[in-house]
Amino acid sequence: MLIVMDAHATAEQIARVCDEIRQMGYQPHPMPGPTRTAIGVTGNEGAIVQTSRISSLPGVIDIVRITKPYKLVSREFKEADTIVRVGDLPIGGPGVVVMAGPCTVESRDQLFASARAVLAHGATVIRGGAYKPRSSPYSFQGLGEAGLRLLAELRQELGVPVVTEVLDTETLPLVEEYADILQIGARNMQNYSLLRAVGRSHRPVLLKRGFAATLQDLLLAAEYILVEGNRQVILCERGVRSFDQHSRFMLDLGAIPVLKALTHLPVIVDPSHAAGQADRVIPMARAAVAAGADGLIVEVHPDPAFAVCDGEQALVPHRFAEMMQQIERIAAALGRPVLGRSPQPTHPA
Amino acid sequence: MLIVMDAHATAEQIARVCDEIRQMGYQPHPMPGPTRTAIGVTGNEGAIVQTSRISSLPGVIDIVRITKPYKLVSREFKEADTIVRVGDLPIGGPGVVVMAGPCTVESRDQLFASARAVLAHGATVIRGGAYKPRSSPYSFQGLGEAGLRLLAELRQELGVPVVTEVLDTETLPLVEEYADILQIGARNMQNYSLLRAVGRSHRPVLLKRGFAATLQDLLLAAEYILVEGNRQVILCERGVRSFDQHSRFMLDLGAIPVLKALTHLPVIVDPSHAAGQADRVIPMARAAVAAGADGLIVEVHPDPAFAVCDGEQALVPHRFAEMMQQIERIAAALGRPVLGRSPQPTHPA
Amino acid sequence: MLIVMDAHATAEQIARVCDEIRQMGYQPHPMPGPTRTAIGVTGNEGAIVQTSRISSLPGVIDIVRITKPYKLVSREFKEADTIVRVGDLPIGGPGVVVMAGPCTVESRDQLFASARAVLAHGATVIRGGAYKPRSSPYSFQGLGEAGLRLLAELRQELGVPVVTEVLDTETLPLVEEYADILQIGARNMQNYSLLRAVGRSHRPVLLKRGFAATLQDLLLAAEYILVEGNRQVILCERGVRSFDQHSRFMLDLGAIPVLKALTHLPVIVDPSHAAGQADRVIPMARAAVAAGADGLIVEVHPDPAFAVCDGEQALVPHRFAEMMQQIERIAAALGRPVLGRSPQPTHPA
Amino acid sequence: MLIVMDAHATAEQIARVCDEIRQMGYQPHPMPGPTRTAIGVTGNEGAIVQTSRISSLPGVIDIVRITKPYKLVSREFKEADTIVRVGDLPIGGPGVVVMAGPCTVESRDQLFASARAVLAHGATVIRGGAYKPRSSPYSFQGLGEAGLRLLAELRQELGVPVVTEVLDTETLPLVEEYADILQIGARNMQNYSLLRAVGRSHRPVLLKRGFAATLQDLLLAAEYILVEGNRQVILCERGVRSFDQHSRFMLDLGAIPVLKALTHLPVIVDPSHAAGQADRVIPMARAAVAAGADGLIVEVHPDPAFAVCDGEQALVPHRFAEMMQQIERIAAALGRPVLGRSPQPTHPA
Repeated sequence: MLIVMDAHATAEQIARVCDEIRQMGYQPHPMPGPTRTAIGVTGNEGAIVQTSRISSLPGVIDIVRITKPYKLVSREFKEADTIVRVGDLPIGGPGVVVMAGPCTVESRDQLFASARAVLAHGATVIRGGAYKPRSSPYSFQGLGEAGLRLLAELRQELGVPVVTEVLDTETLPLVEEYADILQIGARNMQNYSLLRAVGRSHRPVLLKRGFAATLQDLLLAAEYILVEGNRQVILCERGVRSFDQHSRFMLDLGAIPVLKALTHLPVIVDPSHAAGQADRVIPMARAAVAAGADGLIVEVHPDPAFAVCDGEQALVPHRFAEMMQQIERIAAALGRPVLGRSPQPTHPA
Repeated sequence: MLIVMDAHATAEQIARVCDEIRQMGYQPHPMPGPTRTAIGVTGNEGAIVQTSRISSLPGVIDIVRITKPYKLVSREFKEADTIVRVGDLPIGGPGVVVMAGPCTVESRDQLFASARAVLAHGATVIRGGAYKPRSSPYSFQGLGEAGLRLLAELRQELGVPVVTEVLDTETLPLVEEYADILQIGARNMQNYSLLRAVGRSHRPVLLKRGFAATLQDLLLAAEYILVEGNRQVILCERGVRSFDQHSRFMLDLGAIPVLKALTHLPVIVDPSHAAGQADRVIPMARAAVAAGADGLIVEVHPDPAFAVCDGEQALVPHRFAEMMQQIERIAAALGRPVLGRSPQPTHPA
Repeated sequence: MLIVMDAHATAEQIARVCDEIRQMGYQPHPMPGPTRTAIGVTGNEGAIVQTSRISSLPGVIDIVRITKPYKLVSREFKEADTIVRVGDLPIGGPGVVVMAGPCTVESRDQLFASARAVLAHGATVIRGGAYKPRSSPYSFQGLGEAGLRLLAELRQELGVPVVTEVLDTETLPLVEEYADILQIGARNMQNYSLLRAVGRSHRPVLLKRGFAATLQDLLLAAEYILVEGNRQVILCERGVRSFDQHSRFMLDLGAIPVLKALTHLPVIVDPSHAAGQADRVIPMARAAVAAGADGLIVEVHPDPAFAVCDGEQALVPHRFAEMMQQIERIAAALGRPVLGRSPQPTHPA
Repeated sequence: MLIVMDAHATAEQIARVCDEIRQMGYQPHPMPGPTRTAIGVTGNEGAIVQTSRISSLPGVIDIVRITKPYKLVSREFKEADTIVRVGDLPIGGPGVVVMAGPCTVESRDQLFASARAVLAHGATVIRGGAYKPRSSPYSFQGLGEAGLRLLAELRQELGVPVVTEVLDTETLPLVEEYADILQIGARNMQNYSLLRAVGRSHRPVLLKRGFAATLQDLLLAAEYILVEGNRQVILCERGVRSFDQHSRFMLDLGAIPVLKALTHLPVIVDPSHAAGQADRVIPMARAAVAAGADGLIVEVHPDPAFAVCDGEQALVPHRFAEMMQQIERIAAALGRPVLGRSPQPTHPA
């Protein structure tokens, strides 16, 4: 932490700030400069400093925090990549993982048709919403438990893990029973009660970045989960709000190398929600893999025109097949296999 | 709804879109223009149209939605202002209401000292957090039920209503028992399970706008509450994320006249969280009242330097007293009294 | 400046950074903490430090700049408010100044009708565009020199100063000849050649904030003007781009107290462009004055329906009259007169 | 264009709007719905409709524009991709073009060393700034004409085209004489005098997107150039302002497929300015190519620690070599060669 003093601060004011820092149990390091004095503070790593005690003192004009407020999720705490294991599927290792399926579970036929189509082309996790968070109370809210049961059936029949969203702590026990990965949606990224609850689950968690969450917010949300004991967290970039509404959201692919440097957790990308239109999903899926994502989560529907939700952005199966071919080549260019598709890397990284 | 066809769309493509619209139960109105045809759609008011059935047809390049997706909260549905009554305090009428108190309930002394100070200068509702949503799991999370009990004591002893945040459905019954107004924080604005739950409460709800929520998102969140039966909702602008971090959040006062035109619900402003620093709170409180806000919710602490949370932005009591004098004059300039302070308007509007 | 070292940085790496700092002519102040070392740098005030020499050294993970990059515009450099004088009109003193008139000069009749109407209600500067920056090359681009001549005629006949936009250095001599205040529009806020050129002018400059300019960008743009010798600069907040398009731009009134603290230059607000609709202009004008703005610049048109540009946001004269009455009462509540209208403050501040 | 009437609009109000539309020379198409009437307007394609004449009529609550305001740049106007030719280098065809070199021309040695290094690895255009737009007037502003002469020397000696920024119309003749491609920087994207001037040049123009420019703003800026006769325009995405400052700018790669659908002009990406740090440039360069960019413009410096400007984001030559290898593999995965490096595509698209 660094305290910046006013250019006109007096020696007494500086001394008083140093005293206060000492009383709080830290070390002050005054650094007089030609126009002003700054005071470094050490000893506060990992503590939440009550900065208001200092900012309220006369002569203080700014306080600059340096310590990152998260710990368990940081690379400094754990250097090696975390590999989240779903059955025998490793997420966060050298292989790229593709999760795919419909936005919403609508019926047994629709779910199984989507799932069979995407599995045929290399998806290794099936996605499908049973409880849907919708901006409007008048929109379809999902099949609920019936949807979960269809997912469970699918899992058993096809032997594939499923990821589905959990909306609240009430339905968490049910979702936990049926799903292999618990998805926390963008709107719930700072629903701390829910984060703590999934932090006590034995299921891996897929945590989506909020519409306007900074990467620090995202990492702190993940910290809420890890601090409760669950270390199996996958981060997901899915686009943020911006001033230009050319697409539904602005996909922030620059977040990938930044997150990979800050945290050991796997990072995947949802290109469907940001694109908002199917013809933009494939280029963004390619770009995500090229930027270093550990995986994708993509919406696929056998008949998007009749999807009850977000049909515009769902790929039809043959377009999904094209996407898989393309990202396999992109991943290979980086020396990474696409799991379920290309067991061996074709180029060294 | 309006369907925009490609400049090169054929007559057959246009006819097929019209057919599809008719099959969905609506009326198509093709409008041929010199370079392209647009097709108006009527009969869809209030329905969630499955636009993917149309957007997937050849020749369609854009679909423009016109109908607002909310109903109960809209001025078109109910023209007269909703006045939310908390005891005999009317929120949303001609009087401006000021809610004030500490960010967080820390102790009996701190709570009562803050409350007595703000009541002396015209606050009519006491605010204070018992459950605190914090970005970091390591920050103080509030006193919980002990904090609620202190609020209840305060309410009984001083005869003043209290507003406090409810974080989840688990603690809602407890908060409902102790609080006069249930606050939904910015991070929970799209926590639909919680919105539905407070929609079934008999307590008024103070709904804060999310960091990156559009006004339409905010109104839809309110719609979730009204649709469950609770019509006593107060909206609160509290600042949004922006590219310039000169303040903690960018207070969007332009939202006030827009909301007042779109909805009949009362609109108040929290200038403390956006300002982030006490010396900016008063100008923003004045501006909020000048822009037409129905009230303010402001953080006041007897000793901000020692506040456990957000001390930088809390006003000390004598600064709060100045604020009240200033906003009383501003409100009077608009012909509005500040409730609890100035019973009669001094200027006609 | 503060250099943050990696938690695993070695003593040698720290020593090398200190050496580099000394070689660059500054003083290093290493501060070892429990988990990492930070190194304060002094002696660099006012200099542009070549931080790449340090950031490229092993073990350095972050560099935090503290010194503000602007000087002449800062309150630390000049504590007293700058009062820009246009004839005998003081801008930036206790009085609030209102500049008003049409978006664009369309004809002698339209200009004189607008001007007479706004002068009757207390405007003290007439605005009107002769050269218009338009997003589309197909939109009306202004009358050019003919517009300037009409403004000059108006100035002479009615004895009122005029403000008009200068778009480029080629037309600057012409605009300078006819206008009392040179306006730099939002799109040109970082057109440094133009900023330098008006910095060598003897005319006051009204500098509008760019759509996505931080306050630091705005102050640096003003610094470009002051550094060339022209100290008569008025800053203007006019709304920024945001994710919510409920209004044309998001008016950032929180910028006012922040700017007033950082700089001695006057700060005015343009509520018309941000509002985009006439019925939102008055609440925002009131809020701007309540927040502490030194003035307003407002679009008024005798017949907005037939305005060639931005008619939606222009006030008709009788609405402008209402606005003036309202802001006079707001200003009075703060102890400020509206110049040209209310010579004495009615309440002490 | 579509006029939305209030739910309570009367038949007379609707008739009056239709009359006004007819008087303006267009056709009204009223569409009565169950709760409100909308009125389609045809005949206005390509015209700038004076919407204020309609919006000011009673009963009108919204006007929705549908026609795109640009023409010459649109795919509807010209379906085939524009290929900009610089000497015999085609930009916008199947090949990916890499422009590279230092941010700023500092000296003959630095420029030639950078250029030789990047040419050795496949760059086909050399970049280098002679006139630099800098946020601070105290930052190095470039070598000016001396820098241009060094670029000209380089061009002649090494036989490679150069791209450099033009800041204003005064220096345009000089820059035009020395440079092969005229760069318009982000800050000047809406400097219409400059856009018109380069629109009359015979040199190709590289137009960078403004920090907060929508894609529509960018396309309208390009339209300003095309309308003057210069059809050789290359668009460049370089990152926009966002609420999260994890990187210098947020690179909007989702803009690439959207732009490629809307316009026939080539689209390239500058990953250096957005990344702000060298180690993030390569992943973003890969992602840009994967998303479908026609080229890259990248900063390379032989000794970034001593760069006078933006050293943090410059690649050293051997890292540039790695980048070229990687993007060649990515481009090949899409069936595209990197010009100057890989003459034949290795995979069919």
